[in-house]
Amino acid sequence: MKVAIIGATGYGGAELVRILHRHPKVSIHSIHATSMHGEKLSTVFPHMQHLIQDTLEEADLDQLAKEVDIVFTATPSGVAKNIAPLLVEKGVKVIDLSGDFRINNRETYKEWYKINAAEQEKLDQAVYGLTEWVEKDLQKANLIANPGCFPTAVLLGLAPLVKEGIIDENMIIIDAKTGVSGAGKSASQGTHFPETNDNLKIYKVHAHQHTPEIEEQLQNWNEKIGPVTFTTHLAPMTRGIMATMYLTAKESTTTKNLTELFQKQYKDNHFIRIQEGRFPSTKEVSGSNFCDIAVAYDERTKRITVVSVIDNLVKGASGQAVQNMNKMLGFDEHEGIDFMPLFP
Amino acid sequence: MKVAIIGATGYGGAELVRILHRHPKVSIHSIHATSMHGEKLSTVFPHMQHLIQDTLEEADLDQLAKEVDIVFTATPSGVAKNIAPLLVEKGVKVIDLSGDFRINNRETYKEWYKINAAEQEKLDQAVYGLTEWVEKDLQKANLIANPGCFPTAVLLGLAPLVKEGIIDENMIIIDAKTGVSGAGKSASQGTHFPETNDNLKIYKVHAHQHTPEIEEQLQNWNEKIGPVTFTTHLAPMTRGIMATMYLTAKESTTTKNLTELFQKQYKDNHFIRIQEGRFPSTKEVSGSNFCDIAVAYDERTKRITVVSVIDNLVKGASGQAVQNMNKMLGFDEHEGIDFMPLFP
Amino acid sequence: MKVAIIGATGYGGAELVRILHRHPKVSIHSIHATSMHGEKLSTVFPHMQHLIQDTLEEADLDQLAKEVDIVFTATPSGVAKNIAPLLVEKGVKVIDLSGDFRINNRETYKEWYKINAAEQEKLDQAVYGLTEWVEKDLQKANLIANPGCFPTAVLLGLAPLVKEGIIDENMIIIDAKTGVSGAGKSASQGTHFPETNDNLKIYKVHAHQHTPEIEEQLQNWNEKIGPVTFTTHLAPMTRGIMATMYLTAKESTTTKNLTELFQKQYKDNHFIRIQEGRFPSTKEVSGSNFCDIAVAYDERTKRITVVSVIDNLVKGASGQAVQNMNKMLGFDEHEGIDFMPLFP
Amino acid sequence: MKVAIIGATGYGGAELVRILHRHPKVSIHSIHATSMHGEKLSTVFPHMQHLIQDTLEEADLDQLAKEVDIVFTATPSGVAKNIAPLLVEKGVKVIDLSGDFRINNRETYKEWYKINAAEQEKLDQAVYGLTEWVEKDLQKANLIANPGCFPTAVLLGLAPLVKEGIIDENMIIIDAKTGVSGAGKSASQGTHFPETNDNLKIYKVHAHQHTPEIEEQLQNWNEKIGPVTFTTHLAPMTRGIMATMYLTAKESTTTKNLTELFQKQYKDNHFIRIQEGRFPSTKEVSGSNFCDIAVAYDERTKRITVVSVIDNLVKGASGQAVQNMNKMLGFDEHEGIDFMPLFP
Repeated sequence: MKVAIIGATGYGGAELVRILHRHPKVSIHSIHATSMHGEKLSTVFPHMQHLIQDTLEEADLDQLAKEVDIVFTATPSGVAKNIAPLLVEKGVKVIDLSGDFRINNRETYKEWYKINAAEQEKLDQAVYGLTEWVEKDLQKANLIANPGCFPTAVLLGLAPLVKEGIIDENMIIIDAKTGVSGAGKSASQGTHFPETNDNLKIYKVHAHQHTPEIEEQLQNWNEKIGPVTFTTHLAPMTRGIMATMYLTAKESTTTKNLTELFQKQYKDNHFIRIQEGRFPSTKEVSGSNFCDIAVAYDERTKRITVVSVIDNLVKGASGQAVQNMNKMLGFDEHEGIDFMPLFP
Repeated sequence: MKVAIIGATGYGGAELVRILHRHPKVSIHSIHATSMHGEKLSTVFPHMQHLIQDTLEEADLDQLAKEVDIVFTATPSGVAKNIAPLLVEKGVKVIDLSGDFRINNRETYKEWYKINAAEQEKLDQAVYGLTEWVEKDLQKANLIANPGCFPTAVLLGLAPLVKEGIIDENMIIIDAKTGVSGAGKSASQGTHFPETNDNLKIYKVHAHQHTPEIEEQLQNWNEKIGPVTFTTHLAPMTRGIMATMYLTAKESTTTKNLTELFQKQYKDNHFIRIQEGRFPSTKEVSGSNFCDIAVAYDERTKRITVVSVIDNLVKGASGQAVQNMNKMLGFDEHEGIDFMPLFP
Repeated sequence: MKVAIIGATGYGGAELVRILHRHPKVSIHSIHATSMHGEKLSTVFPHMQHLIQDTLEEADLDQLAKEVDIVFTATPSGVAKNIAPLLVEKGVKVIDLSGDFRINNRETYKEWYKINAAEQEKLDQAVYGLTEWVEKDLQKANLIANPGCFPTAVLLGLAPLVKEGIIDENMIIIDAKTGVSGAGKSASQGTHFPETNDNLKIYKVHAHQHTPEIEEQLQNWNEKIGPVTFTTHLAPMTRGIMATMYLTAKESTTTKNLTELFQKQYKDNHFIRIQEGRFPSTKEVSGSNFCDIAVAYDERTKRITVVSVIDNLVKGASGQAVQNMNKMLGFDEHEGIDFMPLFP
Repeated sequence: MKVAIIGATGYGGAELVRILHRHPKVSIHSIHATSMHGEKLSTVFPHMQHLIQDTLEEADLDQLAKEVDIVFTATPSGVAKNIAPLLVEKGVKVIDLSGDFRINNRETYKEWYKINAAEQEKLDQAVYGLTEWVEKDLQKANLIANPGCFPTAVLLGLAPLVKEGIIDENMIIIDAKTGVSGAGKSASQGTHFPETNDNLKIYKVHAHQHTPEIEEQLQNWNEKIGPVTFTTHLAPMTRGIMATMYLTAKESTTTKNLTELFQKQYKDNHFIRIQEGRFPSTKEVSGSNFCDIAVAYDERTKRITVVSVIDNLVKGASGQAVQNMNKMLGFDEHEGIDFMPLFP
């Protein structure tokens, strides 16, 4: 099987290359970007020297359609909505790592992304690829909307509670923290080291574009779900997302019962590790496709706290994309992505 | 005026020394610790060389009572409850930076601190020193319970809303993040650099001893306040606390109205800086006695988010202690603590 | 006395404002930048809120000449060479924090800075302001070239050895490490947090423009000094410079003898702290005007190692500039800059 | 092939587990430590959950000798010197990651390590495993002394110059910087986050125990080599070593010539990546077995600067140990260790 990566010069693209070049069942056919054609990718990413010889090419969709089985689009918002449908029409499977196909409601997309959405027909074709909870047969899917980094951590942490109707549907509060690689490879004042190091910032309060993505999925699972409070913080670290979620229990319960519920619901999911009697930290999943989750009930307040951590570039982007590819192509789910976190 | 510091070898004590040695109206009479007697403090803290010549001494309470006007106790929990009352009896004013006198309810103290509380009579004498909101005349106070680092950030952020009855009293959710200096000067596995750097941890979920301190103060302001959800995170930075607070508005409002309320309530408080149209970050108050606060209303959820940042060792400990001392001694409130944050 | 700052929106300018606004003997008359005229400086630097009300203005040199006693130029290379002489002609004293007046040899300046130097006559007027070693009477100086951050740490560490002729003049090797604030306030790929955090880089190998500045001063002290090896590293921290210097002793000596030499030479210099039996670290001087130095002799190799640390933005820039101002205006040398490092 | 790890609870041991559990040609038979017997390793290292089920056992050397082919000892200094010879006698191959067998001269070992050395006969049996430069047939070796982290970076960077006689043998100056994981898993005041973060320290000046290891190897290559200056710094990062080496060229040369020499000497070494026209940074090798090297000639001083970076826990410890194992067992050299650095 041959794969191509469009948008290989960002962090998501680089992680795809890292994972796919060692994948036992696929090979990287070509890598693409909008500039630097003819340059080796290892010029952009010197850490790839001696391993990756590929050069950046312009993406010729017709040619790609003839030569590859699957294309990953790791492009900025608004790009894949044009490219992906063309590739799908030509018979190529596409996994899009951008936000373009994640939100089915076109108005909602436009409201939060401030650009026009893809056509409704295309949006309807896309499968939202939160791998552990996809109900459709991914082998039949042609277009996967790979989830956002925050929604991945959040939805994996909320799913058992929302699906079982355990929590008040109108009282979902998500306090999310991310490492700075989530801001992408382009430098900006907001990611300038002297002002980011040893500093904790809050950003996009009530305004993060991952909010409607979270809500739409939760509502797919439980239509009573109301709007959620979702706030994001920038922590002085490179990788990692922690979502701390505050929920109100409809009925009294215990930490033990809740933990067992999570264990049961995720018992067949290798990449979800339910913590018992302890809480996860971001470094414990760094560089890996794991999502570590803990849940605790507070008798004093009748509230439930869920903590979910991922590596934003792996389970929150490229690792999950390959997990989806594995399912799409009928491989074992953890083929090529079963590596241990890098700790410390 | 002469001051003594008991517990000078911790971070709180060191910050007191930093601040007080340049205070225009008091002088450091002596510094005390339980060990290292006869050693220069600058042996423990080499950054103090050429500035601080004092040596560590055993604390002789009788002698201190004769020679100093005010004593700061920056000792572990359970120590000041024995020392402070003796000093007060001998006519010395005491500002305690530990938790010993912060909680008036002895049962509550024992439940969360796991040790016996001070005597009720002594607890009743102590004034809770959240300086901006102290109603009593501090010049008449003999014993000040200096607030905890987290409660300082939290209570300053919640006061306007709780006092005005704007929020649902039973829906207060506090997601707090602290730098690692909050764990004190003693090394431990939990503060070992390789496992703390580039990592985000959550700790003491539903179990932090600052919870009852927050609740007791809120209930003093508004007796309807129920138990709060309070969770703490360890961010990979040295100083700083950010408290992100999620609240439910009783009635629809706007960010503008809320901001004006905060501006009005804090208009005479130099150290409280209400942010308008932007959000604070911890580095913007680092090394200073400022507390920067922003408030935002989310129309979608009818919820209010308040963000409050402080330097945990300054406004969250030693800076506020000196602010209290200033008021106790009738000085101008910002005498000796009006320095600019160190940025970047 | 009134001072103006030209170039107030960079880190050097901001530190000048931090220091000068609390200086007991001068007041900030006005602050200037090339853009953002009419904006409050606290818009650029929110940490200054409630303390600095000044707005940015265009610099009118004629007006400044009439209204202020001293001007600090904290501008990029190539700017002050035009401004400073005009101000001096109009009778204003100038302290330039850029490289424009540090190198007396015009050819050398051009070779390393790649732009034309100031006029020779102006260069000859400028006094190189390594405060502890200035031999001229600064009260008579009109134009001070404030030393570069690296040269400050390096020269203070080498002076006793070079002046006493203790080391081989042709074997001076300087391995310097700086925090990222040394790169200035403008964001770039090289200071992008995800690629700078948890990373150590080497840059400008054999090519740093501070090399000739170091050499020229050393040769002023000892004309036999040959070219030095000077290499710079970027460490994942915000502030601080450590220069580790490797030297060959002409004759056998001991660590004790060398330490005594340093202590003797710096015995009247408050800001130089010679370490005995221990080595300094950058955080121990952070936020302060101190330079901490240790020296050690290695019997095995007959080589001497000198370690010198400063805060690059204080003793390496704005703190030393104010130290020079104090001497220029006849104040006590440590007026307004005698604050303790911020630790931890 | 079956392997056992003695000392699995340190960082070196944990990295061995990370690498070996995915190695295609060996399996982990058992893991050992001096305490916590019966506990799962994933209790100590939660990042290993779902991947490593092994429990810690006491090491029974007789049993190990019967059941495994190779033993890794990742123990503190002074332990392996007793264990390894016993295992070798029983016919098991041993790779020791401690310093016990690295220095052939017993007096030297005692002088720098302050404990007694292994027996001379055993030291003579040990092969120093700087893989790229081992001249003996590793398939015939029974005991490998795996090089220290610093010596690995240093020796790989110096080998071409020393072997070719290009540099002055008495003028080798090594300025080394390491991440804090080099200090091991045990917490101490020197690795306490608040005092290590945003700080740069120098330690063991002229006194690091890796000094004689470097010297002995260099002298094996070129007997004229004199004592080296070797100084170590602690940088605020988790992983990574950078060695900056200052050397005096016997004859004039060019950067181009030197780079070509390095390229030629390492042309068959996959894990050595010679940089051309750029310099390496530690993050570019993080998590990998690569050593990136750049060399530059300075015409002004006739000196050569070599920069060498590795991940101290991989090429500087466990990765190189597996590289040695591969050669010992006749596998392809990069079997199981050819993973890409984790960047950013």
